[in-house]
Amino acid sequence: MTGIGIDIGGTYTKIAAVRADGRLVRQTRLSTEPNEGKDAFIEKITEVVNDWKLELGKDLISLGIGAAGDIDPEKGVIRYSPNLNQWRGVDIVRPIKRLTGLPCVLENDANMAAWGAYSLELKKKYRNIITVTLGTGVGGGIVLGGKLFHGSTGSAGEIGHTKIVPDGELCNCGDRGCLEAYVGSYAISRRALQALKNAPKNSTLRKLSCNGKHIGSVCLTEAAEKGDRVAKRIWFETGEYLGRGLANAGLLFNPDCIVLTGGVSRAAAHFMEPLKRILYSQSIATPFKFMKVLVAKSADLGSLGAAMYGIEKITEDRG
Amino acid sequence: MTGIGIDIGGTYTKIAAVRADGRLVRQTRLSTEPNEGKDAFIEKITEVVNDWKLELGKDLISLGIGAAGDIDPEKGVIRYSPNLNQWRGVDIVRPIKRLTGLPCVLENDANMAAWGAYSLELKKKYRNIITVTLGTGVGGGIVLGGKLFHGSTGSAGEIGHTKIVPDGELCNCGDRGCLEAYVGSYAISRRALQALKNAPKNSTLRKLSCNGKHIGSVCLTEAAEKGDRVAKRIWFETGEYLGRGLANAGLLFNPDCIVLTGGVSRAAAHFMEPLKRILYSQSIATPFKFMKVLVAKSADLGSLGAAMYGIEKITEDRG
Repeated sequence: MTGIGIDIGGTYTKIAAVRADGRLVRQTRLSTEPNEGKDAFIEKITEVVNDWKLELGKDLISLGIGAAGDIDPEKGVIRYSPNLNQWRGVDIVRPIKRLTGLPCVLENDANMAAWGAYSLELKKKYRNIITVTLGTGVGGGIVLGGKLFHGSTGSAGEIGHTKIVPDGELCNCGDRGCLEAYVGSYAISRRALQALKNAPKNSTLRKLSCNGKHIGSVCLTEAAEKGDRVAKRIWFETGEYLGRGLANAGLLFNPDCIVLTGGVSRAAAHFMEPLKRILYSQSIATPFKFMKVLVAKSADLGSLGAAMYGIEKITEDRG
Repeated sequence: MTGIGIDIGGTYTKIAAVRADGRLVRQTRLSTEPNEGKDAFIEKITEVVNDWKLELGKDLISLGIGAAGDIDPEKGVIRYSPNLNQWRGVDIVRPIKRLTGLPCVLENDANMAAWGAYSLELKKKYRNIITVTLGTGVGGGIVLGGKLFHGSTGSAGEIGHTKIVPDGELCNCGDRGCLEAYVGSYAISRRALQALKNAPKNSTLRKLSCNGKHIGSVCLTEAAEKGDRVAKRIWFETGEYLGRGLANAGLLFNPDCIVLTGGVSRAAAHFMEPLKRILYSQSIATPFKFMKVLVAKSADLGSLGAAMYGIEKITEDRG
């Protein structure tokens, strides 16, 4: 049995075919270009799916899709996605089902990354996990008792918009003080640019950032690795902020494991120590005593997880 | 079928016999006196249970117990309870089972209040609820998909110790910035005493509080009802702080309903408006669109819920 997983991001859409045992059969990536409209997008991805379907034949049983934004998994609709050209009420599952003839599920992309972490990286060893996707935005996916946890309207896990500082930094969502406004990549970049103002003229970070014009996570990591003090401090603070957000989630969910994924998680070596210090110094210590904090190995958990989740759902329905 | 529920608090222990349909058969209250030791305590409550057992006969099928503190529900042990004379590793279920001959479950007291809210007050109408116990301390109990949610080590729902202000007010747990350090009754009293320093000499709150010596929630509510501006402001701020804590929990769990219970919840008329304003102004609006915030009617949800939970567990095990 094989499932196809699709991870729809603001820039790229990743597609992967994965066998039920977790083996990757093939994968590809295409530009999402949400501004060209949903019909053009749906046509583009169904073309890939139908090509693969010819090759995979009856072994292909399901399609799992993850998309960034507010998703209605029951109706298979993208309620609202700021990163997909502000798409609102976009019906995804119905047309794709019709065009491919495959059973299809739609979920939030962070949920699919969580399923990938749970089923592939952790091999279902832990039953309660929280996955945090650290990219431009900060998302969360939750597996409880070995099942994806949706909450009442499919919106559970919005850890990026939990508030860690009252009336704090401005978040892309419009609120202030969200975790994302401190550890989303745009927020890290903003703090680094601010800190660079008082840094020495010849600082490594300044050189690597084209004199402070662009500071991405990769550049900031490189500067930290070269010993730049400002870069190191920014990562240290990022770990503290992230630790605060994770501590709150840990106190509420008492999970076995928190998995970090997404671009910013690649810098974990520079922020993990202060992060863990915050977690393991909580007075209410029991939830953290056995809780692991891991960084995902795969950079494609969204598409791989979506493929695995599609297989899971279809075999569950059949069973 | 009837179950007995026991709610062990720092000061009082409440005992109630409840029928499976929710009807209260009888109830009583005794002083906990944890400093007299666990053996004396266990003897005292088993005496009541065995008395009632003689009257109720075979109709009595179970014993549910809720206790304040860090509980191991699987082993039936109080891991640590600061409010019960610092009891550590106190085996509750085994001796009570032996002395009463009844099947017995032990849970955190907030979990039992949550079960009471779910099964009795809401009649299982909502599947996902969070119950917040607002007393000296602030606890949380969570029902997900109609089941009590424990997390991995039985410590889920510690909403009182989620941090709402970085390095904020000192909490009884030793950390800073916990929700409890703002909305626990001791914290409300602390803020009120502080605010009273700058209040007019003839203020209502000053009079009601014996010239600022004791400000409890009841006194603060009375002052607010009489129009005292300081008292009204303290309750308003309490609503804002509580709103921040509930917003974070709402974003993570996306529940159908949040139920407030405990002494401080009696002042809801004075803090509900700012609380709801915080919830319903979140940019990520979906989790809050259909979420209700209710105040529990019964002041005994802990013992009643424990009775109902005991019945639930024993019939589940038998079924």
